[in-house]
Amino acid sequence: MKDVDDIHRPMLNSLQSTSAKMKKVVLSVNAGSSSVKISAYSALFGQAPIQLAEAQISGLTAPPATLRYTRHGEKVIKDEEVKDQKVSTQADAFDILLKTLIDDDGVPEISSKEDIAYVCHRIVHGGDFVRPKLISDETYHNLEKLNDLAPLHNSTSLVIVHRCMGDLPKTTLNIACFDSQFHHTIPEHIRTYPINQDIARSNHLRKYGFHGISYAFITRATAEFLGKKVEDVNIIALHLGSGASACAIKDGKSLDTSMGLTPLAGLPGATRSGSVDPSLVFHYASDVGKLSPASTKELHISRAEEILNKESGWKALTGTTNFGTITAALDPSASSQNLSREEVAKMRLAFNLFVDRICGFIGSYYVSLGGQVDALVFAGGIGEKSDRLRAAVVEQVGCLGFGLVDKEANETRVGQELDDDHAVIEIAPQTKKGGHRVLVCKTDEQFEMARACAEDGEFWR
Amino acid sequence: MKDVDDIHRPMLNSLQSTSAKMKKVVLSVNAGSSSVKISAYSALFGQAPIQLAEAQISGLTAPPATLRYTRHGEKVIKDEEVKDQKVSTQADAFDILLKTLIDDDGVPEISSKEDIAYVCHRIVHGGDFVRPKLISDETYHNLEKLNDLAPLHNSTSLVIVHRCMGDLPKTTLNIACFDSQFHHTIPEHIRTYPINQDIARSNHLRKYGFHGISYAFITRATAEFLGKKVEDVNIIALHLGSGASACAIKDGKSLDTSMGLTPLAGLPGATRSGSVDPSLVFHYASDVGKLSPASTKELHISRAEEILNKESGWKALTGTTNFGTITAALDPSASSQNLSREEVAKMRLAFNLFVDRICGFIGSYYVSLGGQVDALVFAGGIGEKSDRLRAAVVEQVGCLGFGLVDKEANETRVGQELDDDHAVIEIAPQTKKGGHRVLVCKTDEQFEMARACAEDGEFWR
Repeated sequence: MKDVDDIHRPMLNSLQSTSAKMKKVVLSVNAGSSSVKISAYSALFGQAPIQLAEAQISGLTAPPATLRYTRHGEKVIKDEEVKDQKVSTQADAFDILLKTLIDDDGVPEISSKEDIAYVCHRIVHGGDFVRPKLISDETYHNLEKLNDLAPLHNSTSLVIVHRCMGDLPKTTLNIACFDSQFHHTIPEHIRTYPINQDIARSNHLRKYGFHGISYAFITRATAEFLGKKVEDVNIIALHLGSGASACAIKDGKSLDTSMGLTPLAGLPGATRSGSVDPSLVFHYASDVGKLSPASTKELHISRAEEILNKESGWKALTGTTNFGTITAALDPSASSQNLSREEVAKMRLAFNLFVDRICGFIGSYYVSLGGQVDALVFAGGIGEKSDRLRAAVVEQVGCLGFGLVDKEANETRVGQELDDDHAVIEIAPQTKKGGHRVLVCKTDEQFEMARACAEDGEFWR
Repeated sequence: MKDVDDIHRPMLNSLQSTSAKMKKVVLSVNAGSSSVKISAYSALFGQAPIQLAEAQISGLTAPPATLRYTRHGEKVIKDEEVKDQKVSTQADAFDILLKTLIDDDGVPEISSKEDIAYVCHRIVHGGDFVRPKLISDETYHNLEKLNDLAPLHNSTSLVIVHRCMGDLPKTTLNIACFDSQFHHTIPEHIRTYPINQDIARSNHLRKYGFHGISYAFITRATAEFLGKKVEDVNIIALHLGSGASACAIKDGKSLDTSMGLTPLAGLPGATRSGSVDPSLVFHYASDVGKLSPASTKELHISRAEEILNKESGWKALTGTTNFGTITAALDPSASSQNLSREEVAKMRLAFNLFVDRICGFIGSYYVSLGGQVDALVFAGGIGEKSDRLRAAVVEQVGCLGFGLVDKEANETRVGQELDDDHAVIEIAPQTKKGGHRVLVCKTDEQFEMARACAEDGEFWR
């Protein structure tokens, strides 16, 4: 596969357009099943974008929907209920967020839709796409086809793409950024499933991997922190949130990752089982092969996929999707919580199970990387917030040459100092020559999308 | 869970019966989908059994069926076609094997069915059974129920159990030895799937693990080789055959294993996919939730389970179920084989994929064992025979502190010296203090079943 740089560098050198010399507004859109987040940046071609504002609507599936809005790092609206407006879809939420931005005099860069040069959309499943893609009508239809592979994941983004293509001026470019693209470097023997290869090819069945926008950010931030070039950095990265995955990164590129054909494989999540015996679901219920009642004419979701994606994970073990509730229950000083012994046991099971699965991938990827590991990097909501989880994981993998956790850095400094300016903090320093460092990274998918957009000459002609 | 020893030691002390002082004949039966093997032993209570003879019928699913018979280590019948007799089921094969034993004057210990004191049956899925079980009518019905969990695996054995219960004298005890029982020590947070726990409990959905009879043998043989007590030995064991698995053994007990609720999970095999994204099969074909045409009224097999168990693995990648064919194709000196470059590429893909998945489990289990690993042990048909696979695996995991493979031991001595008297051979010696050894073990499930029978006082009263 040709390197993106090889393809575009010559193109850039011949760029005559003044477009590449103008500041432009980039919106990064990140749509989940229950929330939509947009971040606005001012960008110059080839330079790091600068954030102008950030707006988010949450609670789409658990009304009332609430709005949060931050301008230049200052919180302007804090979780305000959205009234007088219909917010039933991701596209509705996008409209409100965009209006909030346009109406705010504090962001003069965006006073009308015409000011928006680019909208970068995070698309979970990018199939064979290996880099961000300008969304033409043709691309849009290709994205719709990909929906078959990831109906539970892509459709929320496509609703917004569709709205943007209809409502924004023709001068605004819509760009698809794929969570799978970072993993296109995974070698064939790792990405192949040992199944009938004719069917694998025709049905596009292989490991794709996800959280790639985050892993791209983590790789760059870690390289910067270590004072290395991106292409020289070897890390084991953990993106731990309500969806969780692990990634082996060799020479700055994805070598393996825990998610697979879909985000279901690998680590468990808030409502996701992660890898289980592929036979399991046929012993779970008799109707697993049937379509879920949530399916539509366009969207085919088997009952099995629904069970394993939406009704499993630590919610199924403990009743909560909030990992913070689980770790709090294990804090001996928090005995005031009045949890029964049985409830605490459930929380402990969920915690230990998650630690066990994470450590399994660390061991596995340590071997994939031949022990040449610059750092183990924690990221994602849980990776950033749960010092207890980090301490448990680092202790378990100590036998691989990771140092002891620095209690103060892990429990205090991460929370105090981890911000946009300090995206990486070390929590377990190298204890010996050849030992491996342990870091926490504040990942930023929106920034990474804007950065990718600002770097890609094809979008700036 | 009570230790077996705690339960039985007192019972044994009070054993008055002379039964425990008599030599008895133990048959170990190992039935696969296409073959049945029986080994006959002379056993004294509490002592290692001594093999009398061994007989096998192969080719049940690819007629003509052939018979092989060995007496006191000497080959008496070599792959002779079975004529004049119907051999359509495992029970038919068992009848012929038993008759061969009885008719052979060279084994005077078995001159009639009455001479057989015990028949040990290898049962793949033992559900919650934690030790061998005398098969009463009630046990038999429990075993039939377990068939639901492992229809593809248990039914072949049950056919023979049923025949033995009907045809052998009442004095012959039938004993079920479970491939899952060795794994009953796997801790809750490792064996639990993060799914709805009410359904998990009612449908018995958890990691069971298999190849346990083999792992029990491997653990004991390795401990003996290392001059350690079984309860002091920590190993990563690989049972690699047309079905393949890995096991982390801590203090002589199973801590984790790669197979799961069924033998499908974990490593790929000859026709088995191993772990794949649990969503995969729903993208493979639309009828995966339906029953396979191979299902019967008693036996429910989904089309998905059939695809992943019977139509995948290296057969799907290369066309052959014989791993030896794959490794031979990669031997540069064997260019005479006239394989096309494309065919060799397929073989290489299957080989590299298998090595990758095996190394992943070794890394994972190294962490589970906290780096306290006495040895990595290869076993099973491929583990014993493929020096190329062993060399590739050991090289990849070198970063964990495994030594370099001794070429001569790996390529020559294993083939020449590995036999019943030398069940373990070292192929990569410890190179430094705290380094880990690499061994090859000739595992023997039949012996292990007979040994378990000879050790269990309950069966000798």
